[in-house]
This record gives sequence, structure tokens and C-alpha cells, in this order.
Amino acid sequence: MTPSKIEHIGIAVKNLDEAIKYWENVMGLKCYNIEEVADQKVKTAFFRIGEVKIELLEATSEDSTIAKFIEKKGAGVHHIAFKVDDTNQALKDAEEKGAALIDKAARKGAENLNIGFLHPKSTLGVLTELCCE
Amino acid sequence: MTPSKIEHIGIAVKNLDEAIKYWENVMGLKCYNIEEVADQKVKTAFFRIGEVKIELLEATSEDSTIAKFIEKKGAGVHHIAFKVDDTNQALKDAEEKGAALIDKAARKGAENLNIGFLHPKSTLGVLTELCCE
Repeated sequence: MTPSKIEHIGIAVKNLDEAIKYWENVMGLKCYNIEEVADQKVKTAFFRIGEVKIELLEATSEDSTIAKFIEKKGAGVHHIAFKVDDTNQALKDAEEKGAALIDKAARKGAENLNIGFLHPKSTLGVLTELCCE
Repeated sequence: MTPSKIEHIGIAVKNLDEAIKYWENVMGLKCYNIEEVADQKVKTAFFRIGEVKIELLEATSEDSTIAKFIEKKGAGVHHIAFKVDDTNQALKDAEEKGAALIDKAARKGAENLNIGFLHPKSTLGVLTELCCE
């Protein structure tokens, strides 16, 4: 696996409306998409900066992984997503090299990407998403 | 302030040699620079991916902010650095819009960048670096 770029940085937020205001007013970026991902129990907001996106994530349920993350670590950077040619192949490559998989196979994520996560216990603490269109 | 791109993502690691091996072997990136920043008490390693860099940070002292970060939150993403036209102007703009500054004026960081940090208590938990060449 050699990812071609960072597709997005996922940031856990407590309140999506408040966070959109911060990223627009202070950081000068523009929100271009708001989307709910029901099976991940999150509402997301997207911003572009250069070739990378910022994805804000608000939990829509107390048992969302985002709610649990904020409870444990506080709001802040949740994951980094790397663009790969083929998510299933990249997951397989990563596993062969010792990474632990959260997803054994690609599934659909926000913006209709094919996504899969590596477990942070095997990636030196960085929750790592691999994704392709 | 409107940053033009993400300059780098800073990642706190316990052991730089082990982390370089992980990012090269599993993630397929190539370390192109290792640099010690004495006044920040860190040793850093850099990788390129698209227009963004990954900066690994290992503490060189127990009272390094990186050592304290790992003690509190564990290894993982430490900060996001945004490229701006003028770090001093961007710090001023951010403060005027309500951000709390760690650095009142730009200082020299790794790779000779002019850097300044916003406090995560005012940026919804994201330790934010502003930087220019």
C-alpha cells in the first residue's frame, strides 16, 4: 500500500453547528456538505483545504463511537483517512504487514467512499482510515 | 486568515525509530528528514504524502510537551499545521476572532518554518499550528 494523499482528517466535535461556525469564522474555510451517516451514528460536515478535506463528526447517539471517543479523550482529531487505489487490497496489505483491522472488508462511508479502518492499537495510536471512490 | 493547505500533521510517538519503521513498512511512505528541535525538546521525522507532510515527534526530555501529551492522551495525532501567508498576521486575525494564542508572535520551528500555535481550549480541542516559510 502506498496512499496517494490524505483524503480527510476526521475531527470529533460536541456540537456540529458551533464547530461549523468556528471553522468558517476563525479558520476561514467554507462548509460545502452536511451529511448524516446513520449506521455510524454521526452527523458530518465537510470543508476543503487544498487537496484535503476536514470532516467534522458529531455523535447522534450516546453509543456512537464519536460519543465514546469524546468521553475518553475529549473533542479533537479522531482519525486520518488516506486515499488508496483499492480499499480492500490496502486492508489486505496492511494486515499482512501486521496491522489489526477494524474492517475486514470495505464498507460505504460518508460521501459514498469505500472505507475501512485499521485499529489504533496497531498503528501507534493513529486511528487510520483507508478509502477510495 | 484563509490557510492554503495543510502543511503537516504532527503525531506524538513513544519511539521514533519504531514509528519510522511503521510508517515506511506498513503505510508505504519514505522518511526524508530527521531533525532535533532543541528548544521544543523533540526529535522529529518527516514523510511526504501528496501536498502534506507527516511529522513524527518523540520527546527528548520528560518535561517535553510531547512527553506530557503522551502521558495524558497516549501516542497519536498531536497537532495540525496550516500553511498561511504570514504567521504573525494569521495569529493576530485568529486572536481577533476569539482564538487563544500559545505564541503571541511567530518563532522558528522544524524545517525552518515560522510557526505559531493556537490553544486547543479555543479551537474545539484541535491543537492548531499556523506556519509559513
